[in-house]
Amino acid sequence: MPETSLPLALTMGDPAGIGPEITAGAWRAMRQGATPFAVLGDAGLIGRHDVPVREIATIAQAAEVFVHAVPVLPVGLQAPVHAGQPDSRNAPAITTSIARAVELARNGQAAGVVTNPISKIVLKKAGFPYPGHTEYLAALCDVPGREVMMLACPELRVVPVTIHVSLRRALDELDTSAIIAATRTTHAALQRDFGIAAPRIAIAGLNPHAGEDGSMGTEEQTIIAPAIAALRADGMDISGPWPPDTMFTPPARARYDVAMCMYHDQALIPLKTIDMTQGVNTTLGLPIIRTSPDHGTAFDIAGRGVADPSSLVAALRMAMRMAEHRNRS
Amino acid sequence: MPETSLPLALTMGDPAGIGPEITAGAWRAMRQGATPFAVLGDAGLIGRHDVPVREIATIAQAAEVFVHAVPVLPVGLQAPVHAGQPDSRNAPAITTSIARAVELARNGQAAGVVTNPISKIVLKKAGFPYPGHTEYLAALCDVPGREVMMLACPELRVVPVTIHVSLRRALDELDTSAIIAATRTTHAALQRDFGIAAPRIAIAGLNPHAGEDGSMGTEEQTIIAPAIAALRADGMDISGPWPPDTMFTPPARARYDVAMCMYHDQALIPLKTIDMTQGVNTTLGLPIIRTSPDHGTAFDIAGRGVADPSSLVAALRMAMRMAEHRNRS
Repeated sequence: MPETSLPLALTMGDPAGIGPEITAGAWRAMRQGATPFAVLGDAGLIGRHDVPVREIATIAQAAEVFVHAVPVLPVGLQAPVHAGQPDSRNAPAITTSIARAVELARNGQAAGVVTNPISKIVLKKAGFPYPGHTEYLAALCDVPGREVMMLACPELRVVPVTIHVSLRRALDELDTSAIIAATRTTHAALQRDFGIAAPRIAIAGLNPHAGEDGSMGTEEQTIIAPAIAALRADGMDISGPWPPDTMFTPPARARYDVAMCMYHDQALIPLKTIDMTQGVNTTLGLPIIRTSPDHGTAFDIAGRGVADPSSLVAALRMAMRMAEHRNRS
Repeated sequence: MPETSLPLALTMGDPAGIGPEITAGAWRAMRQGATPFAVLGDAGLIGRHDVPVREIATIAQAAEVFVHAVPVLPVGLQAPVHAGQPDSRNAPAITTSIARAVELARNGQAAGVVTNPISKIVLKKAGFPYPGHTEYLAALCDVPGREVMMLACPELRVVPVTIHVSLRRALDELDTSAIIAATRTTHAALQRDFGIAAPRIAIAGLNPHAGEDGSMGTEEQTIIAPAIAALRADGMDISGPWPPDTMFTPPARARYDVAMCMYHDQALIPLKTIDMTQGVNTTLGLPIIRTSPDHGTAFDIAGRGVADPSSLVAALRMAMRMAEHRNRS
């Protein structure tokens, strides 16, 4: 590795959402720091938000440009952009931005990929076949099905084992092998990308009070306990199954590095209850580093200059820290 | 009402748990204040924790005794008490304490009932037929099935519509009429006992992102939306169904007075993530006021003098404030 870090590749996200303005805000907050990024997108669109922009030809130019202007690797738009009014005609630009960012990271030219928010509905209308970023990234990286979503804020990391399905389907899908696979991926990533030599992993129960010895559900005994036994046999530091309501209290969450959660809201509720603005979404199990802010396109407030870039800044910083850990390991 | 408030009736809870020591701690914290209470229990047991105790013959004596000593209305124990070692032989004393406290509140001699923690397992062994305090209190008050559990801390109030059942059974049991009934009870209690003239009630969705227009579950449309329509037709200020993960963020939770939650952990996770020590459990839908600390018997630390009385203090103060609102209304 050269002395200066590689830049991060930041995708454009939906151009009608808050992506352009939080990108401008993140650059203002970070221009003096050691985390340069280049945007795969439209220079004019970012320039609308009172920041200097400069088109670059290769991402290698990003670091020297970064202190003066937002470096932009141009990705052409297909339709004019009106903030707050998404247009499916721009779907190819949105997905091209993601694909090129992944390519730069896989080629070793970018330290990692940070994604601005996209709208599933807008992309779906244009024929995009993936439920979201995470699955598209796994496909681009040739590891479909291996992706694991981790959400993090300074006080808590959580991984939902089941994700974007109804609660009823999450109960049907939850199984021992899914818990084992997600936990192994998480354990490896905490070691390699977060510098935690022996990650302390807390596994949540599913039912109130973790079933209270089977009196309120038996999945703790039939599904979760066998996963815990298998993971301990691997030599990991595993605790649980914990009563879901008491495992996220301030003293409890200080005792582990990550909580493996059985369904989407069991993971997302405590994280967002603590801190909405610092939340970062990261995809584990990919060959590349990828983070994103933990919020959506926010079409309702886009273009008004009120969007908070904090979560994007946190995502950029986390990606750079992860890259540093990975380079050292 | 006399000028001085009626005292609260505080039950003994399991004598081998932390009840005696947090009772002593609460008295130390509150003896100078305007919230006198009398304990239905064993004077000697409370006196073990370095506080003066005085047996009284009627609860009317509690207010004048309170500044000098813990007032105790004696309830005889059946077996010697060893902290941390519960004994089912004392189950009759535990339940008698609760029954007498309810009687005092129903007779207008106590401002309300505050309960110390009990162990369901200990009582069940002795033939106690109720799943917990809440159901027993509803039976004692002749309103079985009408009880609604509300958990509160200074920043958040939550009501789980389904409670102590497995998550799978909660999905099966959730129905429109249960949401309507629990919300009506909650609305009435917030008006009468909390002094909120027009309660703002937020109703949670069930599925991730509240189902995202049916793509991740349909209960929002089939079960929750009809309840919201019916409650609005009653004239209540109802919002929802909200995506469960974003409705408890700090800015979101400032916008409502109570969140109606679809299952136990949807309600309890955010509450305990915010604040474990100030949580209060209150039973709505009873003719009497009843609160309790939001923790259990803690047999593992009982008798060592380390138990934190904060939640019991918060429960006593909330009960007194509720009584004051009810007297005014």
